[in-house]
Amino acid sequence: MTNPIGIISMFYARPFGPEHLAILPRMKAAGCDFVELLVPEPGELDLGETRRALEANGLGVVLAARVNLTRDLASPDDAAHKAGIAYLETCVETAAALGATIVGGPLYGAPLVFAGRPPTPVSEPDRQRKIDQVVKGLKTAARRAEGEGVVFGIEPLNRFETDIANTTAHGLALAEAVDSPAVGVMLDTFHMNMEDPSIPEAIHRAGRRIIHFQANENNRGFVGSGHIDWPAVARALIAVGYAGPITLEPFRRDGDGPGTPLAQWRAPHRNEDEELAASVAVLKGALRFAEAGR
Amino acid sequence: MTNPIGIISMFYARPFGPEHLAILPRMKAAGCDFVELLVPEPGELDLGETRRALEANGLGVVLAARVNLTRDLASPDDAAHKAGIAYLETCVETAAALGATIVGGPLYGAPLVFAGRPPTPVSEPDRQRKIDQVVKGLKTAARRAEGEGVVFGIEPLNRFETDIANTTAHGLALAEAVDSPAVGVMLDTFHMNMEDPSIPEAIHRAGRRIIHFQANENNRGFVGSGHIDWPAVARALIAVGYAGPITLEPFRRDGDGPGTPLAQWRAPHRNEDEELAASVAVLKGALRFAEAGR
Repeated sequence: MTNPIGIISMFYARPFGPEHLAILPRMKAAGCDFVELLVPEPGELDLGETRRALEANGLGVVLAARVNLTRDLASPDDAAHKAGIAYLETCVETAAALGATIVGGPLYGAPLVFAGRPPTPVSEPDRQRKIDQVVKGLKTAARRAEGEGVVFGIEPLNRFETDIANTTAHGLALAEAVDSPAVGVMLDTFHMNMEDPSIPEAIHRAGRRIIHFQANENNRGFVGSGHIDWPAVARALIAVGYAGPITLEPFRRDGDGPGTPLAQWRAPHRNEDEELAASVAVLKGALRFAEAGR
Repeated sequence: MTNPIGIISMFYARPFGPEHLAILPRMKAAGCDFVELLVPEPGELDLGETRRALEANGLGVVLAARVNLTRDLASPDDAAHKAGIAYLETCVETAAALGATIVGGPLYGAPLVFAGRPPTPVSEPDRQRKIDQVVKGLKTAARRAEGEGVVFGIEPLNRFETDIANTTAHGLALAEAVDSPAVGVMLDTFHMNMEDPSIPEAIHRAGRRIIHFQANENNRGFVGSGHIDWPAVARALIAVGYAGPITLEPFRRDGDGPGTPLAQWRAPHRNEDEELAASVAVLKGALRFAEAGR
C-alpha cells in the first residue's frame, strides 16, 4: 500500500494555464505522483490537452473546488445556492473529462476572510437553515458524482476561512448527513492544527470516511520545516487504512518581513523544487515507517 | 521565580462592566494571580472602582489594547494613524490609573478578518510605508509609556487577523526598530502555533524582549486539552529568564456543531471554572518542572 503524493498547481502558478503544463516534468522529478489542480474556470485550461499532458508525464490528477459568495450552498440567496450546486456538478464533469475521481474542498461554501466577510453571530434557526441547505445541495450534487464514479471530499477549513465546517467532527457530521457513497471528508493538517485537539485522533475518528488528505506544515511552509508530527500523522493514516492521495500545498514564501500579507496567495520568489523534493521525501519516509510498523 | 498566571476578562463577559467585578473572587479561586482586562472603552468601567476591586481580591492587572480601522498606526489615512497614537497614549493613562504596567496587543493596527478586510497584495513601497508609520507611531507612544513606567508588548497575530506582524520574527523586527525600553513583544501560543516553525525556538529567539505571554491551546480550548507542548513551552520561557505574567484566553465553547462561527467571540454556555482551574494547574505544573530542571 503506497499513498500517491502530489503537489497543488498553485505552488507554481495561479491561474495555472496551458503555458504551465511545461512544469509537469518538474513535479515528477520532485517525486510527485499526481498534481492537484484547482478546478479550471472556463477558458483557463483545455481539458483534453491537459489530460494528454498528465498522461504523457505519468501524473494522476485530483481536483480542488473553488467556492465563492456567488456559488455558495450555504447562502440565503437562492440563486447563489443553486449556482453552488451547478458548480459542483460542473466539477464532476471536469473530473470525468480529466480522468480524476476526487473533487475536494470547502464544498459547502460560505468563505470568510478571503471574501471580506467578518465572522458574525448566527442564530440557532439560521445555523440549522444553513446546514440543511448545505446537506440538501450536497445530496443533489452527489447523485451526479455517483453516476460518474467521482467522489467528493468535504474539507473543513479553519475558523477564519469559513463558519460552516472547521473541525474534522464538523466535516464528518456533514458527510454523515449527506449519506452518499460519493461523499466523504478531505482533511488538511494546516486546518487540523488549528481546530482539532489532536491530529492523529481526528484521523482515527474520520477513518474510512477520508477521501483525500492534504499534508501541510503548521505555517504552510514545506513539510518537515515546522512542528507538525509527520511520523504520528503517517501512523494514523496507515492505521485507518487510508491508501488515497496526499497533496502538499507549501504556499509560504521565505524571507518575508513585517507587512507582508501572508494569507494572500503569492507567487514563488525562486525555484523551490529542491525543498519540494525534500518534503516529499520526509512524507514518504514517514509513511514507510508507518507501514513497516503496522 | 514564579510567573503570575492570569485570565482574560472576556473569558467571562464582553463587554466587562462594573457588574462583572463580582466575578473577581472566582478568578482567584481558580488559581489566577491577575486579570487581563481589555482596555475599557469610555464608560465601560470606573477605573477607581475597578482598581479597588482588584486590590480587594489580591489580583494584579494587565491590559489588552483593542485596535480597529479608525485607530490604526498602519493606516494610509492620517486621521486613523493619529487616532492610533492617541489610543495607545490613552492605554498608558488607563494602565497608570489601574496600577497596570503592561499594555499588550496588536498595537500596530491593520485588522483583517475581524474588520471584514480581505488579505490583498501589497507593493514593496506600500509595505515599507506601513512599517515606517507603525514604527514612528510606536516611538511616539513609547515616550508616553516611558514616562509612566508602562511597557508595550507588540503581539504578532496569525495571518488571518492582520497583515502587519504574524511571526515572532516580525514582532521582534518592529520592537527592534522602535528601540525603546518601553517596547517589547507579547507572544501568544495560539498565533505562534500557526506562524512559527517551532514555538520553543521562537521563545528562545525573543528572549529578553518578551514583555508578556499568552498561553493558549491550538484551538483556543482550555490549556491541556489540545496539542500544544506545554512542558516544552515552559522550559523555553524559564530558560530565557521570563518571569512575567502568563494569560489564559480559552474562548472555545464546547459542543458546537457545524455552522457555528468559531472565530466570533461567544459567551460561555455554562460555568467553566473547573476547566479553568485545571488549565492553571497544567501550566503551573509545567513551569515547576521547568524551574526544577534549570
